[in-house]
Amino acid sequence: MNLSIAHLGPPGTYAEQAAVLYGSWLTKIKGLETTLFPYPSIFQTLRAVTQGQVQIAVVPIENSIEGSVTMTMDALWQLDTLQIELALIMPVAHVLISRAQSLEKIKTVYSHPQALAQCQGWLEKFLPSVELVPTNSTTEALQELKRKITAAAISSSRAARIYNLPVLVSSINDYPENFTRFWIVSQGNIPIIKQVSSLKTSHTSLAFSLPANVPGALVKPLQIFAQLGINLSRIESRPTKRSLGEYLFFIDAEADVREARMQSALQQLTAHTEILKIFGSYNVFPVSVLEEEING
Amino acid sequence: MNLSIAHLGPPGTYAEQAAVLYGSWLTKIKGLETTLFPYPSIFQTLRAVTQGQVQIAVVPIENSIEGSVTMTMDALWQLDTLQIELALIMPVAHVLISRAQSLEKIKTVYSHPQALAQCQGWLEKFLPSVELVPTNSTTEALQELKRKITAAAISSSRAARIYNLPVLVSSINDYPENFTRFWIVSQGNIPIIKQVSSLKTSHTSLAFSLPANVPGALVKPLQIFAQLGINLSRIESRPTKRSLGEYLFFIDAEADVREARMQSALQQLTAHTEILKIFGSYNVFPVSVLEEEING
Repeated sequence: MNLSIAHLGPPGTYAEQAAVLYGSWLTKIKGLETTLFPYPSIFQTLRAVTQGQVQIAVVPIENSIEGSVTMTMDALWQLDTLQIELALIMPVAHVLISRAQSLEKIKTVYSHPQALAQCQGWLEKFLPSVELVPTNSTTEALQELKRKITAAAISSSRAARIYNLPVLVSSINDYPENFTRFWIVSQGNIPIIKQVSSLKTSHTSLAFSLPANVPGALVKPLQIFAQLGINLSRIESRPTKRSLGEYLFFIDAEADVREARMQSALQQLTAHTEILKIFGSYNVFPVSVLEEEING
Repeated sequence: MNLSIAHLGPPGTYAEQAAVLYGSWLTKIKGLETTLFPYPSIFQTLRAVTQGQVQIAVVPIENSIEGSVTMTMDALWQLDTLQIELALIMPVAHVLISRAQSLEKIKTVYSHPQALAQCQGWLEKFLPSVELVPTNSTTEALQELKRKITAAAISSSRAARIYNLPVLVSSINDYPENFTRFWIVSQGNIPIIKQVSSLKTSHTSLAFSLPANVPGALVKPLQIFAQLGINLSRIESRPTKRSLGEYLFFIDAEADVREARMQSALQQLTAHTEILKIFGSYNVFPVSVLEEEING
């Protein structure tokens, strides 16, 4: 079986790095051939699954510094039939890449807005007067370096290796604890892709809208989980896009959808929500677990 | 008295538009001279107030399509002593600006990532093969049009007028209900700037972190508000930046901090939160209210 995996952006992005690792793990541990397909946006990456162009998508959902990736949440709500199969947590370490000989020679720094934001303290301190230019991906920023000797890019050391460019300064993240969580998403029809040997607590992700103009309407859904002893590891709101002040709520609950208490929670939730969508149960792993399984 | 007002970006951005309107209202209704100061980022705009470089800042906090402006929330949490004086709701209408004679001739579209996202459906339908290039502001995108006849920018019709550039297509937002909410922020020492004659319900904004590893810790704070009959118009989470899965919660409550029920809520909250920050009480107005007062 050959599995096709969609991911955001060209080689060298963090999403591609996660997709490469997951693909290697499928090949080594599950004996499945995999082919990677880059897409220019998160929406297009996920839509490729719903339209059957690919079987799997790897998308970022949250970074420990910058927070939720809103594009992923919005696409998951809009595109039906998507199921989360696995969550991978990957450490993020930004480096400054440039062909300039020293920091003094740098006039422009290119990167994805999230990467620029994650290094803003470092940039203000060491490159206070450079121009900061946003790009669509950390990899796209590297393209600029070929043209300009006074340009620098923020990306990973892996990207620097792939594109054969020099790292000028390592570890320029403002916060040392920088992790991105990725979701592996499919249409829920390939059970083999979610079985990792080390067992971990299962999470269930869901989202709902609330009946309009009911004061305190969010209290009830949260109470349902609290009374059943289900911890929520994440609560996030997104606009419904209908009217300012109307929200959808995205919840990650620390229980499996097959557990009785979770079944009870979902049943009670239907009575206190307007639309309820369940994105499946899955395990959460640091990438090191996959790496250890690959390396035996 | 001459009041200095900081805002994001060069003339022509939506934030500048809000700052100009608010400045005109202070002059016409309150008899105060005002001077506008553009800053390159939201963090720098707000820091200008805490450092005393300016007295007032105008910053976006939420868009009805794209959701919260996370930079504003993070800066408000980090920079102490800031108080919200007023909230303004402004309609957002994007237009396609270009010197090209027709859509077929356009090869690149420049704009702020939020504006590109708000028009992604229109872009996929009418300009499916163009390159989308992010810029730091909707105004910065207009600079590219001077150099390239095949370039287009997404911005406001007001920006097109200011920079004397032609509007090729009007109303290209994917969602007709597109509004941005701005906060007028100061150090809380200029009471005159928040008195608008038409009275509206007061809102209070606050944020808190929760004691670590307490399952269901968010239920209690929400219950406090529900039991006191205080509706919450917005709940938003942000990462603490210490560790993946640890959050701050930002809440807009529909009550004034001077009301007894709000005093009771705040007192109870201190027992169930780790750090609690209160950003003040303020009224929320559509910009049309200020326009009507200015025009008599």
